[in-house]
Amino acid sequence: MTLRIDLNCDMGESYGAWKMGNDEAILPFVSSANIACGFHGGDPATMRKTVAAAIKNKVGIGAHPGLPDLQGFGRRDMKITDQEAYDMMVVQIGSLAAVAASQGAKLQHVKAHGQLYNMAVKNEGLTRALAQAVYDVDKSLVFFGLAASNMISIAEKIGLTAKSEVFGDRTYQPDGTLTPRTQPGAMITDVKQTIAQVLQMIKTGTLTAQDGTVVKVRADTLCIHGDQPGAVEFAKAIRQALQAEGIEVGF
Amino acid sequence: MTLRIDLNCDMGESYGAWKMGNDEAILPFVSSANIACGFHGGDPATMRKTVAAAIKNKVGIGAHPGLPDLQGFGRRDMKITDQEAYDMMVVQIGSLAAVAASQGAKLQHVKAHGQLYNMAVKNEGLTRALAQAVYDVDKSLVFFGLAASNMISIAEKIGLTAKSEVFGDRTYQPDGTLTPRTQPGAMITDVKQTIAQVLQMIKTGTLTAQDGTVVKVRADTLCIHGDQPGAVEFAKAIRQALQAEGIEVGF
Amino acid sequence: MTLRIDLNCDMGESYGAWKMGNDEAILPFVSSANIACGFHGGDPATMRKTVAAAIKNKVGIGAHPGLPDLQGFGRRDMKITDQEAYDMMVVQIGSLAAVAASQGAKLQHVKAHGQLYNMAVKNEGLTRALAQAVYDVDKSLVFFGLAASNMISIAEKIGLTAKSEVFGDRTYQPDGTLTPRTQPGAMITDVKQTIAQVLQMIKTGTLTAQDGTVVKVRADTLCIHGDQPGAVEFAKAIRQALQAEGIEVGF
Amino acid sequence: MTLRIDLNCDMGESYGAWKMGNDEAILPFVSSANIACGFHGGDPATMRKTVAAAIKNKVGIGAHPGLPDLQGFGRRDMKITDQEAYDMMVVQIGSLAAVAASQGAKLQHVKAHGQLYNMAVKNEGLTRALAQAVYDVDKSLVFFGLAASNMISIAEKIGLTAKSEVFGDRTYQPDGTLTPRTQPGAMITDVKQTIAQVLQMIKTGTLTAQDGTVVKVRADTLCIHGDQPGAVEFAKAIRQALQAEGIEVGF
Repeated sequence: MTLRIDLNCDMGESYGAWKMGNDEAILPFVSSANIACGFHGGDPATMRKTVAAAIKNKVGIGAHPGLPDLQGFGRRDMKITDQEAYDMMVVQIGSLAAVAASQGAKLQHVKAHGQLYNMAVKNEGLTRALAQAVYDVDKSLVFFGLAASNMISIAEKIGLTAKSEVFGDRTYQPDGTLTPRTQPGAMITDVKQTIAQVLQMIKTGTLTAQDGTVVKVRADTLCIHGDQPGAVEFAKAIRQALQAEGIEVGF
Repeated sequence: MTLRIDLNCDMGESYGAWKMGNDEAILPFVSSANIACGFHGGDPATMRKTVAAAIKNKVGIGAHPGLPDLQGFGRRDMKITDQEAYDMMVVQIGSLAAVAASQGAKLQHVKAHGQLYNMAVKNEGLTRALAQAVYDVDKSLVFFGLAASNMISIAEKIGLTAKSEVFGDRTYQPDGTLTPRTQPGAMITDVKQTIAQVLQMIKTGTLTAQDGTVVKVRADTLCIHGDQPGAVEFAKAIRQALQAEGIEVGF
Repeated sequence: MTLRIDLNCDMGESYGAWKMGNDEAILPFVSSANIACGFHGGDPATMRKTVAAAIKNKVGIGAHPGLPDLQGFGRRDMKITDQEAYDMMVVQIGSLAAVAASQGAKLQHVKAHGQLYNMAVKNEGLTRALAQAVYDVDKSLVFFGLAASNMISIAEKIGLTAKSEVFGDRTYQPDGTLTPRTQPGAMITDVKQTIAQVLQMIKTGTLTAQDGTVVKVRADTLCIHGDQPGAVEFAKAIRQALQAEGIEVGF
Repeated sequence: MTLRIDLNCDMGESYGAWKMGNDEAILPFVSSANIACGFHGGDPATMRKTVAAAIKNKVGIGAHPGLPDLQGFGRRDMKITDQEAYDMMVVQIGSLAAVAASQGAKLQHVKAHGQLYNMAVKNEGLTRALAQAVYDVDKSLVFFGLAASNMISIAEKIGLTAKSEVFGDRTYQPDGTLTPRTQPGAMITDVKQTIAQVLQMIKTGTLTAQDGTVVKVRADTLCIHGDQPGAVEFAKAIRQALQAEGIEVGF
């Protein structure tokens, strides 16, 4: 059986006159685009252009809903109720679904953005609200959640197909969770080490935690950070490494 | 054949902690709700509650997209391109469609809000953009436009079903257009006169312009203003008058 | 010596087409107005009108800066840095100061709004940021903080004059802090009991906590909630009770 | 007598996570910074940093208020009343004045942004509103307006000091107004031609219109566009050309 992994990347995060990211350059290397829906970034024109670019590159179209905090780019913790989370998911997914529909396309998946994602990792009620919103809008949408977190099991229990997301540029703890960014060694900046971690995840279904423990991991989709310096080169490198190993890239 | 008219009313225009209108009280008297989609008013929670109330009252759910001007409530002229108009329609329709879908319902129609509607009345390119957006998102949606304006013919040409909207509380000019609000006698404040004008429109397919000229008019849907003092009483009165004449209220 | 208390009330919290509160009716009964500055509520026109109304009623003009969360009315916890808090205070105070200046008036005080105030009660770094911002913009501005909290001492240490704020419609704990709203008996809804608590605070410099303990309290300014049903009647009642006791109302 | 010109440039137009312009690189070459105040761009942190950078470079601090249209960057025509224009000027000037005050500095001037400026050029009532707002907030502030437009005379009549703004990269009409961008030859892209036009304006008090007519012009301040490719090089070149001619740069 051929091994396979999805490569996902956040996109469409420009806003009005302000540009962000390098979507056109990254698109050829990924298989899923998480497209901002206007709450933390993205505006109607950007959504349209990004969906068009995804279609052109045969990349899966995903909604990337965030907290209603444009100034903070959805990266600030906000104490929202589960109902508020549900509501903001519904309208954002709907916005992008309509943009896709207007171009003859269909949404493939949903991945929460920034702090909404981070909050959900640690909050089952919030995750349930996010997943239920996805289910209620369109139960055929695939839900992206952090590997080894409750996000996967909760979404699956609700009835959604979930994809377990892994990171190449982050180290892990023995329980399979990410090392918090506030701790030393949280980030992997060496491309070779990143690629090695990714290949191990896909080929063996394991990762080596920061302390050396080998942990099981389910790697359905790999997060590519598009807004960092060297992002395009990195995407290219990981893509080549996967190809060299005969690992398919795709949803 | 039984005569029939749709009664539509703008709804869901509260925002966050700020309340507007009296939706619950008006809903029993109308057949179509134009629900704000977040750009000029409405927020995700308000959208959810308003859709739920419309379903409960068996009232048709319509998207009511507006200009991106919360502070001006979408009532200020903004020079937007046709493409910008198209884009803002798509995402707003999509937002509300998802809210409806999450409650097992479906959008019925789209009516542009405030100045976006007014601008379209006088601008064919803009109207084409609005109607094309509706068509591209979901061609089964019905397009509401001003009676005797190009909005109806343009939408129909694009392939949409259009409903011709009339007003009971506004006087008309001999060419079938509304008397501008800036001119004397533009508003009809007398309930009896309003009802008489509405009944004439439905029963004879004509209206009597301000100067006495009798003009043909197609009255598919009547706009009920929900945010004015006495709105509920007026809605009740018009409903009773229609019933007394054996005119059905419905989409 | 004549006893004296300031009565403050949040005002100018309308936004665009949305009205909130009953400012004109409350103004005759209070001595200080906390006027929203656009982040959680208030818009330029509302700010102008509210300042004008305060001047007309000879009521002190205060800035009432809030979190950048219009949809949540500044009532949702947001994890902001101290620097972000400082920055948002500076611009909001400046906005209202200019509105006052344009009408020949001057700001008197600053009171943080909603969750920004609540967060500061429990966060010394945040309080320091808020107070430092006030000081840096205009050190003659008076800082309103919760009685028995660190807000008073921190502001005074920075060099500001601080006013210790008390509540008539909330019960207190033996340490002088407010009973959290989530606990039973947090709110006092009986007007007589409210007035009794206020008079005790002013006349004896003490309050009786929920458990019966008598605690010292410094009551410089009393918060009048203007957006609750019966707010005007309550303001009138408290004003009359103070007058009957010969207690002056003023800053 | 030494000839002298002010060089002004728009700055601080980043927003949250989105960067715009190259303020640090341009600042050494200009004498006045027009700093965005949050309505079309700029956020509290950006305002603080930009004011700090201006102070460090001994560049005059100006408020650059715009239309309330973040998504359109204040570049879309909005039909606002004169009162609305007045109100939005007051709060924006106040915001930046407070940021300056918090750093021990003072505002020097005000220049309206984008479409607000363009609309004022053609609308006396609007210009009066803008200038009156500046006067009412702080009559010592200098008002920047388009050379040969009514902006200068209106501001001076109200009692403000006005600076007549000229452009090096735009051609002019025989009446002293700018060639509209929609017409051929509106923009001057050749640096030498730009510099020649600027030197002629300063040294002779005239400009040569597109049709060859020589027109009088008052050149108090020259607009440097900071957001265009080659902006820094151009600023450097114009600065050197002025120095070579013994023309002082300063407010």
